[in-house]
Parts: sequence; C-alpha cells; structure tokens
Amino acid sequence: MNAAERYLTDHQDRFVDELLDFLRIPSISALPAHAGDVARAAGWVAARLVSAGLEHVQVIPTAGHPVVIGDWLHAPGKPTVMIYGHFDVQPVDPLHLWSSPPFEPAVRDGRVYARGASDDKGNMLAPILAIEALLQAEGALPVNLRVCFEGQEEIGSPQIPAFVAEHRAQLACDVVISADGGQWSESEPIILLGLRGGCGVQIDIRGAATDLHSGMYGGVIQNPIHALTALLATMRAPDGRILVEGFTDAVRPLSEADRAAIAAVPFDEGEYRAAIDVPALFGEPGFTPYERGWVRPTLEINGIWGGFQGDGIKTVLPNEAHAKITCRLVPDQDPTQIVQLLIDHVQRHAPPGVTTTVTPLRFTARPYLMPADHWVNQEVSAVLRELYGREPYHIRAGGSIPICMVLLEHLGVYTASFGFGLEDEGAHAPDEFFRLSSFAFGQRAYVALLRRLGARTA
Amino acid sequence: MNAAERYLTDHQDRFVDELLDFLRIPSISALPAHAGDVARAAGWVAARLVSAGLEHVQVIPTAGHPVVIGDWLHAPGKPTVMIYGHFDVQPVDPLHLWSSPPFEPAVRDGRVYARGASDDKGNMLAPILAIEALLQAEGALPVNLRVCFEGQEEIGSPQIPAFVAEHRAQLACDVVISADGGQWSESEPIILLGLRGGCGVQIDIRGAATDLHSGMYGGVIQNPIHALTALLATMRAPDGRILVEGFTDAVRPLSEADRAAIAAVPFDEGEYRAAIDVPALFGEPGFTPYERGWVRPTLEINGIWGGFQGDGIKTVLPNEAHAKITCRLVPDQDPTQIVQLLIDHVQRHAPPGVTTTVTPLRFTARPYLMPADHWVNQEVSAVLRELYGREPYHIRAGGSIPICMVLLEHLGVYTASFGFGLEDEGAHAPDEFFRLSSFAFGQRAYVALLRRLGARTA
Repeated sequence: MNAAERYLTDHQDRFVDELLDFLRIPSISALPAHAGDVARAAGWVAARLVSAGLEHVQVIPTAGHPVVIGDWLHAPGKPTVMIYGHFDVQPVDPLHLWSSPPFEPAVRDGRVYARGASDDKGNMLAPILAIEALLQAEGALPVNLRVCFEGQEEIGSPQIPAFVAEHRAQLACDVVISADGGQWSESEPIILLGLRGGCGVQIDIRGAATDLHSGMYGGVIQNPIHALTALLATMRAPDGRILVEGFTDAVRPLSEADRAAIAAVPFDEGEYRAAIDVPALFGEPGFTPYERGWVRPTLEINGIWGGFQGDGIKTVLPNEAHAKITCRLVPDQDPTQIVQLLIDHVQRHAPPGVTTTVTPLRFTARPYLMPADHWVNQEVSAVLRELYGREPYHIRAGGSIPICMVLLEHLGVYTASFGFGLEDEGAHAPDEFFRLSSFAFGQRAYVALLRRLGARTA
Repeated sequence: MNAAERYLTDHQDRFVDELLDFLRIPSISALPAHAGDVARAAGWVAARLVSAGLEHVQVIPTAGHPVVIGDWLHAPGKPTVMIYGHFDVQPVDPLHLWSSPPFEPAVRDGRVYARGASDDKGNMLAPILAIEALLQAEGALPVNLRVCFEGQEEIGSPQIPAFVAEHRAQLACDVVISADGGQWSESEPIILLGLRGGCGVQIDIRGAATDLHSGMYGGVIQNPIHALTALLATMRAPDGRILVEGFTDAVRPLSEADRAAIAAVPFDEGEYRAAIDVPALFGEPGFTPYERGWVRPTLEINGIWGGFQGDGIKTVLPNEAHAKITCRLVPDQDPTQIVQLLIDHVQRHAPPGVTTTVTPLRFTARPYLMPADHWVNQEVSAVLRELYGREPYHIRAGGSIPICMVLLEHLGVYTASFGFGLEDEGAHAPDEFFRLSSFAFGQRAYVALLRRLGARTA
C-alpha cells in the first residue's frame, strides 16, 4: 500500500463524517427558497478543496447558482485533468415516502441515506479526498489538476454555457473526468460513451376566471383538465411513440454496429422489472429497452395538476390545468429546435374554449457522444480492468449532463465518466442512498486513475 | 303590511348577525377534518329552529353527517309542507383567490362574502326566519310544517336514502319546498322542473415502487401520467362527446316540445361568456348551451394530479397519477349502472405497464324531473307572479340535489324549488357571496308562499 492509499484508510471515519455534513445542506437547485442552501454548499465545497490542498479556489457567482473551481498545476509535462461534479440535489417530494428525513443523513447497513448521497455529493467528494490523500501523504499530484463543481446540474445547468465561455483560461485542460456517474454493478465496470440531451416546456391552460360548479357549467364550457389531457394525447401515442410533428426528423439512424454494441450489454428483464417493481416494461415499438433508454428520444410528463386533489369529492369545474414536460434527446437533435417544435405543436393543437400557453423550461442540453477509442477511454478502461478484474461494458446513458457538450464545444475536450453510483441507489427518488463501500472504493479508484494519467506525457 | 312581514323588517339586523354566525362555522362535508364543524352547524340549526318556535326538533345521526328535523303540526285540514335545505358547504380551495377568508364573513356593498353564503346557508336560513315571523308575530303557521336540513348535500348525500327510508313517518308530507336554489335574476323568476343526477369514480394509476429518474428510465417503462392521460382520452372526445361505451344509451331523447321550452329561456352568449370570463363556450356538437347544461349528461374531470408540481423543473418519472371524475346524469340514466359502465370502460382500456384501479366516489343521485303542471308549481308560480310581476321561466338545472329523487321514491312527493340564489354568486367558487337584499326578500317570499299554500285544503 502506498502512502496515499494508507492515508485514505486512516482517515475514512473522518471522511464519512464530512460526507454527512455535506449531505445536511438542502442544496435543492430547483427551488428558489433553497438558493441560499446551494450557495452554502458551494462554500462548503470551496473550504473542503482548500483543506485538501488545492490552490486558487474560488466560488464564482453566475446569474443562477455559483460554480466552484480550483487547481494544482505543478506537474510540468504532464496532462492537465479537470475533475467535474455537482453539489446541487433534486427536490425531495414525495416526502412521505422517505424512511428518514432527506437532509438528516442516516447510516443503515453500510449505506448512507440522504438526498444527494449518490447523486452527486458522495461521488463528487471521492476525488476531492483522493486529491487530499495524494497531496498530504505524497506532497504532489501525478498530473496537473483543475476542479469544476457546479450547483445547477439538476436543473439543466442554464448558466453553465455562459460560465464556460467566460472562463476558458481557468478551465483549460486536456480532458475532463466526471464524478457524476456510476458503474454497472459492484463487480461490473462501464465505459460511458454517450448521454442524452434534454429540453422541456410547461403547458398552462386557463378557462374561466374562477373554479365553477360542475353541475351548473358542466357541458357548457371547456374543462381545462380535459383540454390538457386531449392536448397531451396529441403529443404521445398510447403505444409510446412521440407524435409531435418533426420531433424525430433529426435523429441519427441506429447503425447495425450501434445495435450490436447495445445488445452486448447484459439485460435481465425480470431482474430489471423486480428492481423497480413495475408489472411490465413499456415503450416505443421496434426498439429494445436499452435502445429506448439510451439512443431514442423521449417525451415525458414530469408533473400534472389541476382542480381538486383532496380526499372525498368536490364537484368543481376547475379553471386551470398544468403540465411539465421534459424530453431526452439523442444525436443529432438540437434542444433549441425541439423546444420550437413543441411550442409549434401546442399552438397548432391548442384546444378550443380555453387559453393555452407554453413556456420553455430552463433545461437545455445537447446530446453527447464520444469516440469509444478516445485515449482517455483507454486509460479509464485499464484502471477499471485492474480494479474489477474484467473488461468494462461500453454503454450509453439515458440521462443528461449538459456540461459535457458545453466543454466539448468551448474547450474542445471530451469528458469521461468515472463515478461509483449504482442503479438501485434511488437518484431523484425517495430514500436515495450511497454505499459507504463505494465511497471508499471511489477514493482509491481516483488515486489509481490519477497515477495512471500521470504516467502519460501531455 | 301584516304582522309577520313587520316582524321581519323589525328584526332584519339581528337576522344578518345570525347569518354571519352561521357562516363562521366551516362545515365542509367533503373533508373528514371538518366533520366536527358539520356537526356544530347541525347543532346551530337545531337551536335556531327551537328559538323560531318549531317543535320536536332533533339532530339525528347517520353513518355520515347528521340531519336536523323539526315540525309544527297544528293546522288541521291544511297541507303538510316540508322545507328542505343543507348546512354543509363546499371546500374552499384555491384559498389564494379569496378576497377575504372564506369563514370570516365580510359584508361589502350589501353582499355577504363567505363560503356557503348563497349555497345554502343564506337561502336555508330565510324560511326559518319566515317561520319565526309567522309563529312569533301571528301565533300560528298557515300550514302544517316539517323541516329537514341535511349536512351532506355537497358530497352527494350518501346516507340520505337510508335516512329517509328509516324516518318515513317523521317526514310524511304532501309536498317539499327546497330552499336550495335560485331565481333567474333579481327581476326574473323561475320554476325549476328538473335536476341532473350524478355519480363519479376516482382513477389511480401506479407504476414503479418509487419516483424514478426520467433520464435513466424514460422510454423504458410506462409513465403513469401518460397512461392516465391516454386513458382519459378514451373517455371523452376532444369535441366533448362522451366515449364511454353505453354511457348515453338510456338517455331519453329530447322531444321537440322539450327543445322549444328550453329555447324560450333567454340566452345572451356574450353576457354568459363575460360573466365567467371564458374565450368561448364549448361542448357536445348538435346541442344548444342550455341543452348541454340541463338535459345532456356530462363527464368532467374535477381534479388530476401526479409528479412534480413545484416551481422550476424536476426531471422525474413519477410513479403515481390520479384523477377524480364526476358525471351529471339525465332521465333515464341510472347512476349505479353508469358507475358500472365507467368501471368496465376503465378496465377495458387499462393502459399497459402500470396498475390501474377505479373506485366509485360516494356521489349517487338519480336525475329528477317533475310535471310542469303539478299543483305546487301552480301555487309557486302564482306567488312568483305576485312578487316579480311576471311569468316565471320553466327551466331545468344542471346540478344535482339527490334528496329530491329520494323523497319522490320513498315518500311519493315532489320537491319544488324556492330559493333566491343568483348565478353570479360563485357557489362552489372563491369569493362566494349572497345579496342581503335576496336574504330579506327570501324571508318575505316564504311568508307569502306559506300563506298561499295555507289557502288550500289538504
């Protein structure tokens, strides 16, 4: 065991305590009431980076939530690597489904339960601790290092394109390693080649000036909820196909090689269903589940509401109905163009008797795809082979990490994923947790990766 | 002016204070948390009946909210008349649209603003005060009188059929006068000939065990909100036609005479639209607005909810979606049969990949229709002609008052409507109000009606 690895072992209890501290900050980027908490999380990260030994640590404000950067650039001739992660988290509702309060982290059976435990606080803290171990125990890093941690990933990183454009010099690097990701299982590693993009709109339908008596007015005027459901039915067919005009026109056709690579990833439908407890899988005809989840676009209603939601009955004809919709996009769909198609569609199919408005949501991510044989994928693969004793699967992911495409566009660098979340950890769901074993494993893996990248010359 | 009329004038200030007291009780029958308030309102009514001079006043429990009855049976040879009304009220949400708190009655410009002001506390208090005036100022009523005030009208009177069946003797009468109703305008009276019936169901759709990440699972599993909107789209067409198999089979065809009577009621579409501020009217093709609202059945979504409803975005694939649906029914639809048709339809069209359940709501009312030339309509018409100086319109109403059909079935008596609400008073909506002029007018009108009914022999 080298000095850095020993340092990690010796300080693991403190690191877990620090993770719990970090998790106590309710840094929900989606809710304006929590903006102060997101800023507090930024401050926590900055302080932690300083104590790890990084230099030029700064919390940089944006028009939204801040970004934290820092560096250590004393490895001449070595590559410059940027570590990426995010300290904001998803909202917590439905709160009643949590076994313990989401911001009172609870350790049970070697797992820490809290909102953000896996996505992404546990995962982003691991490389910081690896850096500390190398700097404190060995006095230097094997590479030039930058860090960039953001506070708006969960809302689609609206200010990140402008931030990256304005801070090119402070972000310049040869490659990015994202700590916002996971592995296939505790024994099976992955190389992540692609991420879906995304965008979204909110639809608001208004009828009368107030809620009305459904007996007096039912049949005479439009019901905004019916108008909304009829409109939504024009956007996605009952079999899952997206019906928005022009939506799939830009989708790059799947090659036989693409389909073969996806088919090579193991899939057990029974296990998959059991893990999330659904009666059957469902989606667009003609594609396998992984194809639907990784390389086909989606249109999903994230929320719908209108009228009476209480116990019992209220025979009201409501005057408002609302839906939030987000789409996942694949190469070569452009989120700006897709938002326009959604707006055009809603306006073209606007129901009679009500006023329909459609507003873009602040979520814009271009789909991301990197070459399987990129040099950083070769290095990451080598480390994963050493750690897991087997070849990683080449996969894509259905989620969106907008910054990957932003960094490629503005800095010309690819982002490789190197995180240790697992699919059962409930990212975005109640009872989110992170395995403390993964937390410790991630720290050692980052030490190994940085050592390997340091063996290259820039 | 006779003694009773003078008594009403002399005590009007006290009556208004009493109305405000009554309105302060938040007797929302739909919400279990307010069951105690409904009981409190029953007690208030019972005490008020005793002080008016009625006898045998009782609060009778049911399996749900209680009923208050009382009588005065000292007019041998005269008809026995039962006065009906209800002391429960609708829920108040959306609360933020109220100009003053719904249970802190506020008098502005000769109107009292409060939940239940028009529907039905103001209207049901008027005949009680008329009875008091006659008994206190003249020592007797011109008819034998019973009263029956219920606390569950706004939730469809689930226990009223059993209550009426069990209390036939205490409810026996020649005719019922309902104080739950209104007139066409301050200068135009009506005779109400029909009420729509009603029934309802709740649909609950469940997907995965928890909410999931829409990037990771979007496209792979069914989204319960999409499943719900697709299911709802099979129940009502975008043009307003009901598509539930068999739903309209029992509807009695409209005769030319029916259509002519309805067409004789004045209708100004511009005024109607402006009053409720809708861009256009809407409904089933081939019928006029009044036909759609009075003699055609409806299927209305009263509430829908699922997923994220907060500000901003949450890219969740929710695991639940819900809708509450109520229908208005017309002769000769049977609510029990219609509920079964709704259940059959939902089961037949249950979407794949989720679990769908459908549960009847506690709202069952058979449609009600009385002969235009019934003797009580002739007497009510005569009183209205005297009070308004013009012939009443013969109308039907779109709402449901289940007890009318229950009393006809169990006691063999018809119910005539004699109330003084007006359409702009926001029954079931925010800022409900009642005109204090209508409150006083209603008291005098009831004195006049009771005198006229007393001129008949039983």
